Amino acid sequence: MESSQEMMVLGLDPGSRVTGYGVVRERSGVLELVAAGVVRTGSENDFPTRLGVIYTAVAELIGRLAPIEAAVENVFVSKNAGTALKLGQARGAALAACAVAGLPVFSYEPTIIKKSLVGTGRAEKSQVAFMVGRVLSCRETFALDATDALAAAVCHLNQRRLRRLCGTQ
Amino acid sequence: MESSQEMMVLGLDPGSRVTGYGVVRERSGVLELVAAGVVRTGSENDFPTRLGVIYTAVAELIGRLAPIEAAVENVFVSKNAGTALKLGQARGAALAACAVAGLPVFSYEPTIIKKSLVGTGRAEKSQVAFMVGRVLSCRETFALDATDALAAAVCHLNQRRLRRLCGTQ
Repeated sequence: MESSQEMMVLGLDPGSRVTGYGVVRERSGVLELVAAGVVRTGSENDFPTRLGVIYTAVAELIGRLAPIEAAVENVFVSKNAGTALKLGQARGAALAACAVAGLPVFSYEPTIIKKSLVGTGRAEKSQVAFMVGRVLSCRETFALDATDALAAAVCHLNQRRLRRLCGTQ
Repeated sequence: MESSQEMMVLGLDPGSRVTGYGVVRERSGVLELVAAGVVRTGSENDFPTRLGVIYTAVAELIGRLAPIEAAVENVFVSKNAGTALKLGQARGAALAACAVAGLPVFSYEPTIIKKSLVGTGRAEKSQVAFMVGRVLSCRETFALDATDALAAAVCHLNQRRLRRLCGTQ
């Protein structure tokens, strides 16, 4: 039974200045925080260097903690194209690190992540943060980007469990 | 004198389906084609896998040919945000590979690249392609993405030479 096995997911919230990450382990149906934090790409660095920082940090996390799958929030792109291009590059560096390490990446709509954690797709950020702490049984307060990354990881583990229960996985 | 030294530049034209590359060597003021081609990311692959293909291909090129600097065209982003996000991710994967390998990346406006090769910022693509072949003394016809990558590399070598002559480098 897969439910008795261990499953570890890396959640990511890539950004050109700050990239959030969160690693969550599921063991016999119980979720547990492994690591969470942010990577600051350094305002003194030029843009390509920042992308290198993101890639290296994500590759190092994968190498050290050995998650099996990655989860990321789909980006809302009705912002201006310049912002989308910047965000896209940060995301490209982070996801390339996952792909090179052989991690499948699963993307979720923001509403699915909120619904998976809070029960409604219109939940506030504070509600998502509260539920992330609750399902991971920790009282720590994380940086916003780390919370978003953890939320993506928890959502993916929930979705996996659902697919397994529905027999679609 | 630096002009008698060898200098090798990797030009890139990143795209989510096709990424063009071109490596140009300058030896005693003469430009020479080292390699040019395209990386196809595979329409059968999911998007993160394509980003991994781009990263790995660029890292492999750098490892094999050992260029010292990289050049890329600035992206025109008044397209829609969805396109910019996709293009940004491909660009992020390619530039992260340069940064991780320690290559400084130089970005040039399309008009600067055209002007550097053809003499006018409003040159047609065919004129740029013709001049790329001419300055590299080769009669080969390259794929469009490879030509754009070579044009960025040639432009960067021209700009470097100019800066050196003007004493700003």
